This record gives sequence, structure tokens and C-alpha cells, in this order.
Amino acid sequence: LSRVLVTGASGFIGRHVVSRLAERGHEVHAVARAADPAIPAARWHAVDLLDPDARGDLAGRARAEMLLHLAWCADPATYRESPDNLAWTEASLELLRAFAAAGGSRAVLVGSVFEYDWAGGICAESTTALRPGTLYGTCKSALGTIVPAAGPALGLSCAWARVFWLYGPHEPRGRLVSSVIENLLEGRPASLSAGAQERDFLHVSDVAGALVALLDSEVEGHVNVGSGVAVPVRAVAERIGALVGRPELLSIGERPGGAHEVPLVVAHVERLTREVGFHPAFDLDRGLAHTIEWWRTALARQ
Amino acid sequence: LSRVLVTGASGFIGRHVVSRLAERGHEVHAVARAADPAIPAARWHAVDLLDPDARGDLAGRARAEMLLHLAWCADPATYRESPDNLAWTEASLELLRAFAAAGGSRAVLVGSVFEYDWAGGICAESTTALRPGTLYGTCKSALGTIVPAAGPALGLSCAWARVFWLYGPHEPRGRLVSSVIENLLEGRPASLSAGAQERDFLHVSDVAGALVALLDSEVEGHVNVGSGVAVPVRAVAERIGALVGRPELLSIGERPGGAHEVPLVVAHVERLTREVGFHPAFDLDRGLAHTIEWWRTALARQ
Repeated sequence: LSRVLVTGASGFIGRHVVSRLAERGHEVHAVARAADPAIPAARWHAVDLLDPDARGDLAGRARAEMLLHLAWCADPATYRESPDNLAWTEASLELLRAFAAAGGSRAVLVGSVFEYDWAGGICAESTTALRPGTLYGTCKSALGTIVPAAGPALGLSCAWARVFWLYGPHEPRGRLVSSVIENLLEGRPASLSAGAQERDFLHVSDVAGALVALLDSEVEGHVNVGSGVAVPVRAVAERIGALVGRPELLSIGERPGGAHEVPLVVAHVERLTREVGFHPAFDLDRGLAHTIEWWRTALARQ
Repeated sequence: LSRVLVTGASGFIGRHVVSRLAERGHEVHAVARAADPAIPAARWHAVDLLDPDARGDLAGRARAEMLLHLAWCADPATYRESPDNLAWTEASLELLRAFAAAGGSRAVLVGSVFEYDWAGGICAESTTALRPGTLYGTCKSALGTIVPAAGPALGLSCAWARVFWLYGPHEPRGRLVSSVIENLLEGRPASLSAGAQERDFLHVSDVAGALVALLDSEVEGHVNVGSGVAVPVRAVAERIGALVGRPELLSIGERPGGAHEVPLVVAHVERLTREVGFHPAFDLDRGLAHTIEWWRTALARQ
């Protein structure tokens, strides 16, 4: 059991990570711009990591053995091309060095499917080229080449997780799964593109479980965090329609777009399953049912 | 004519860059840890770029239209795997953002042949994969993927120069060309490996000229800075022996090593010659003769 510093701790993935770590008995030092007392961390550090003065010697104050760094710019409208991607790259390198200097030993940082060249469909850590199409993907892929290579120089064991698509409780509104569920539960129509493209979806609780399992392992380098299962995007919506019992509210193919989408993007998960030893608790069907129940409760509370 | 901020201005390349820019009539704001009055800058900023307090608002003080960023860790014994490579990556991103925020418009940052996968021999910007073998090369290649991609977000025109091998006046002692010249001029034997591997050498004055031409152009993205000519390393030593008139002092093949060297690494220079319009002033023979004369004078002054 270790003291773990978690950044982005109040975010979509972060809050699930903090819960998982606490369940495993780790002492969680949670970092976010504002503390969230509803999330069960041993200690909160209310710090804006992009503000050098506010950041100060966060790593020295926490003196954690492990680091799980999730914080990044996440505003859905702007994150793809925001200059903040450069600031987050800087802040991440700074945090990693400070964590090492403060005696840390194990670090997991988090990248994305958006680093990969999608042309081949199946994305494998060791053989798929990187070809990001956004500044977000470019900065993540750049940081992701540095982090594992820097382990020996910093005296750290480092892994870089590439997270694929995800859904689940606390997903920000307006994304695919969250918006379809919310619309259907409220009796509103949900209008979608044709959605023939296949993607790799994992329940956020399993994403968090995979990241925690990776952190607790000795696996270094790049590790995909996905289900390994490709599902057409339209099938996700159709499954929600069936589970909510309102399939007639879906208008699939009504929205334009999708024609130029890459047909298949799925994670090769051999490292995650064989080396880390992680297996998801949710398949898509159970994961969506669980997420719908969470939204029912959340909407009833409003 | 513009105000140009040059970092690493007292270094091997930097001092030649400052002279070139001054010759062209640019107003040079030169940055180094210590000012060097022998180098003809309009203004020196004595700043350690790795020290945030010392750095302060350097870009705001300089208010330059152009940035040529050369500074990086360069200690020959340690630069390959030094954790300072991470600090320089951070400092470079920070400088680029501050330069943009201070109203800058054009930036050239400097990478290296050590970013490339050397397996193919000829290194071309658009087709040769990146496969750095050191933390230095990894950090340079990571920064080099971010910089051109960040141009639009920062409102900058950005180029990333990949410099191949170089030699010339002010080369630090102990490197191939500097050590062979110094030994032979002093009448000492020079012991070398077999040196069959072919590499791409450019006189530092031409490297500086290419960087200045690139800065003054509107070319964006990645641009190799090399001669485009492959020369066996042993031929460089043999040419020095002939030009100094002491070929008998060379013991080529006496040192071990070289057996596992990649046989050929040469720059594809179409972008540099056609798009930037730069052509070197020195071929290898004239460049070595010029360098030997500089060393004769330098050694006579000691």
C-alpha cells in the first residue's frame, strides 16, 4: 500500500480512480483546481497545475511513492487545438521531475487513442505508428514518447496509458452516450449520424480499474486501455434505446457526417490483459445498463 | 529587418548565427547564461533559461518579431541521457508561448539528426520515421512534433530545423574534427576507429547561414540542415592530414568501435535548397582548410 498522488482527481476518470485506489487501501492525495469532498481522498490539494506559483512544491508536500497524472485541458469545445495543450505538456514534465526529485518511484501518465495512426484499424503499442490529427494528440504523443524514455534518467518506473473511448457515470453532458441516455430518459428524440464506424468503448469504472492495475504493476512503456472489442457507434445508441425501452426516439442517419470517418479503431489489449493482468468487469451491455441506472438516479435528484 | 531573439547565442552554432544576423542588419537580442561581448549582438540578456525566476518575462522584455532558439544541454559527456533534456523541453515550450504572447511572429527551433530512424540512410523530413536512440533525441523529436503543429494555435509561423554533423571555428575540443586538427597541428598522433561509416558534415558557418535563411523565409515545418553529401568519417580525417601536411600522424583503425555503426546517414536537402533557397558556401575541402587556419591562429594565441 502506497501514497498515491492523483491529478485531475475530480474529473470523469479521476473520481473513479480515486475511489478504486481508496478501495485498495492506498492513501490518495488528490489534486484538482477545487477539492471535491464527495470523492473519498485521504487529502485534497486544491492546485491549478498550470500556475507555477500555485503549484509550488506540490510533489514535495505530498511525498507520494506513486503518481497517476490525469489532469489536462478537457473543455470539449476547445481542447483539440488549444494552446493549453503546450502548457499541459510543460506542467506534466515539471510534475514528473518534481515527483522524482521528491522520492517517487512509480508513475503512470495518461495518453489517448488520438495519438495513433488509425489507418490500420487495430492499434498496437509496439507496431502502430503515431499520427495525431490534432494539437491535443500531438502533445499527448510527444509527452508519451518522452515519459517512458525518461524513466532511467529520473530513477522512475514509468508507464504511459493510451485510453480509448469511454462512457459511464459522471460523463460530461453532450457526449455520445451521455446525450443519448439523457434524451431518451427525458422522452426527447436523439438524432445521430449513420454511425457505421466501429470504435472501442470501455466503462469508465473499468478504465479506472485498468489504470490502477497498471499503476500497481511493474509494467513500463506504452499500454492501451480499451476493451479490445469493436462496436459500431450506431449499435451503442441502439442498445441504449432497447435498454431504456424507447428505441423509437432514435433517428439514426438523420445527422450528416460519418462518411469520412475511419471505419474501424480498436485497441490491441494484449499488454493490458496478459502483462498487467486486467480484465474488465463490464461488457458493453452491462456497462450501458449500469450507466442508464446512474442517470435515472441523477436526473431524479435534479 | 527585424528584432531577433537568439538563445544559446554564445554556443558553437549560436555565435555564428549572431554574426550572420548582424551582417544582414537584424537587431539581435542574444541570450546566454553569460554575455559574451566578443559576439556582436545589439543587446545581451544574461539569463539561465532553466531558472524560471531568472527567465522571468524575457520575451516581454525583448519584444522580438523573430525567435531562433538554439539553447539546450550540450555537455558532451552527459547530454545524451541527462534529465535536463526534460527541463529544456519545458523551457522551450514556455519560451515559445511567451514569445507568441509578446507579439512574436516567426520562430525557428533546432533539432537534430539524432531524431531520425537511421536504417534507411537518407533522412527525409516527410518520409523518414523518427526513432531516437537517446533521451536527447527523444526530447528533441517530441518538441519537434509539437512546434510546427502549435503554430496556428499560437499565431506563429514555425519551423523546426534538424541539424546534421558540423565542424568549424569554435568547435568544442575533443570532437572528431577539432581533436584531429589540434593533434596534428601540435605534432601529436591522432588515433581513430576504422571510420568507414558515411556521415553528412556541414561547416558551422553554413549551418548558421542555413538557419538564418530559414528564419528569414516563410518555410514552415521540418527542414534538414545538412550538406546532402555523404563522406566516410575516415576521409574527413585523411583530408585534415593532407591539408595540415602530417598524414603520417593519423592511425586510422587503431581505435576499436565503428563495427556496429550505421553505414550511411545523410540529409535529404531538397527543402533547404529549393524552398529555403540556401546553398552552402563551403564544400568539405574548403571548409576544413578554413577551420585549420582558424585553429592555427587560435593555438598561436595561447
